[in-house]
Amino acid sequence: MWSTINWSSWRTVLKLDPDKMLPVGFQQIVSHPAVDAIIIGGTQNITPLNTGQLFTQVAEAVKNLPIIQELSDLHAVLPGVDGYLLPVVLNAGSTDWLLGQHLEAVKKYRELMDWSKILPEAYLILNPHCAAAKLTAARQLSREDVLAYVTLAEEMLGFPIVYLEYSGTYGNPELVETVGKIRKKARIFYGGGIKSEKHVREMTSLADTIVLGNVLYDQFEEVKRILDSMTGIKGKEKTACKR
Amino acid sequence: MWSTINWSSWRTVLKLDPDKMLPVGFQQIVSHPAVDAIIIGGTQNITPLNTGQLFTQVAEAVKNLPIIQELSDLHAVLPGVDGYLLPVVLNAGSTDWLLGQHLEAVKKYRELMDWSKILPEAYLILNPHCAAAKLTAARQLSREDVLAYVTLAEEMLGFPIVYLEYSGTYGNPELVETVGKIRKKARIFYGGGIKSEKHVREMTSLADTIVLGNVLYDQFEEVKRILDSMTGIKGKEKTACKR
Repeated sequence: MWSTINWSSWRTVLKLDPDKMLPVGFQQIVSHPAVDAIIIGGTQNITPLNTGQLFTQVAEAVKNLPIIQELSDLHAVLPGVDGYLLPVVLNAGSTDWLLGQHLEAVKKYRELMDWSKILPEAYLILNPHCAAAKLTAARQLSREDVLAYVTLAEEMLGFPIVYLEYSGTYGNPELVETVGKIRKKARIFYGGGIKSEKHVREMTSLADTIVLGNVLYDQFEEVKRILDSMTGIKGKEKTACKR
Repeated sequence: MWSTINWSSWRTVLKLDPDKMLPVGFQQIVSHPAVDAIIIGGTQNITPLNTGQLFTQVAEAVKNLPIIQELSDLHAVLPGVDGYLLPVVLNAGSTDWLLGQHLEAVKKYRELMDWSKILPEAYLILNPHCAAAKLTAARQLSREDVLAYVTLAEEMLGFPIVYLEYSGTYGNPELVETVGKIRKKARIFYGGGIKSEKHVREMTSLADTIVLGNVLYDQFEEVKRILDSMTGIKGKEKTACKR
């Protein structure tokens, strides 16, 4: 139930990919005090088996944090998580990827869907070369496009979260900062290319929530240093965000 | 300001088309006690001139009712109305018609847009032969599609209104009834093909708000009888709907 999860004050979340092997010693990372939540989600090769195995490993290591699944494949929905994030790719290249997949899910699983456990995210895919961009044929966006989508997302479509997804590349700090300034109520999640303390300090000061993903697998040694530095960063003032 | 308009208790609204000449004696109709609001809106040949002229005529005849513009062409936005309805055609055939037009509007007019005056509507275009269906290349929908879109509209996208647009044809009462039953919080607007007391009685018992459009122009004599019969119909119990 999202109403019992303090998601609007998350500062740092880890996104774990079912298609990747957890690094040795991951327990130390997922239980670090700077981590606010664990998200299980990925784009490629998501199966019930690898998703379930990852969940089991994480649930054993994490006791007091929400474990959330970001839904991407409806054949691999985890029954035991605390909540679901439901991405809607606003800059998807076709209506099929914008709403079509969600429509099919409701047609098939209406009776099973508990909307109090589902929090929708307005996704903007900003690295045109990432897997998610290819999958959804994401349109490349100008600065003005991004700002306009953020306003549509919160004012017209009522999304509680706008997720700036730079997956695999480090984003444009000036744009992330402007998004943070023009948004009125949505929380801004930032993901992509965070690999150092410097990155963390910068994006933490501009977005509400930062998502660490690839770095967990590619530079595991660096992650502890990053998280240690997070502990010392005073959070931005929280924005009230009721759904 | 929508917060001051009691739109969620509207039972009957008239939709006046800037592209059509108001019938002689229209004053008697727009000031009928069964009318809850006047919507100015259409699909074809919408210009600043014909829209402005229609608004002037209506504003002179109507004193105590909200006059609302349903936005379809951004070159013909009326400054003097009480509020704007902003249609989002969920079954549009391309992303351009789903969100693209709205995106361009925000890019161009961000500074002028007062979102407290804008109420978004999730449109489902259910007559594949109407002008709006052709304009937006609307996908034809199965019964299950319609029900799934209603759930997405309210649960995932937070729309306060779902508008079942049968423009020019009379809708399927069984489907309208089912929509009314499965929705949880959205108000259901019904438009299309209402031409008689029988139609009014039926759709008023199934949807929250019915929209009278073409009949005002095609069967003006019948409209007064329809509105008289509306006055006698006890409204369905109101559903709380906060935005």
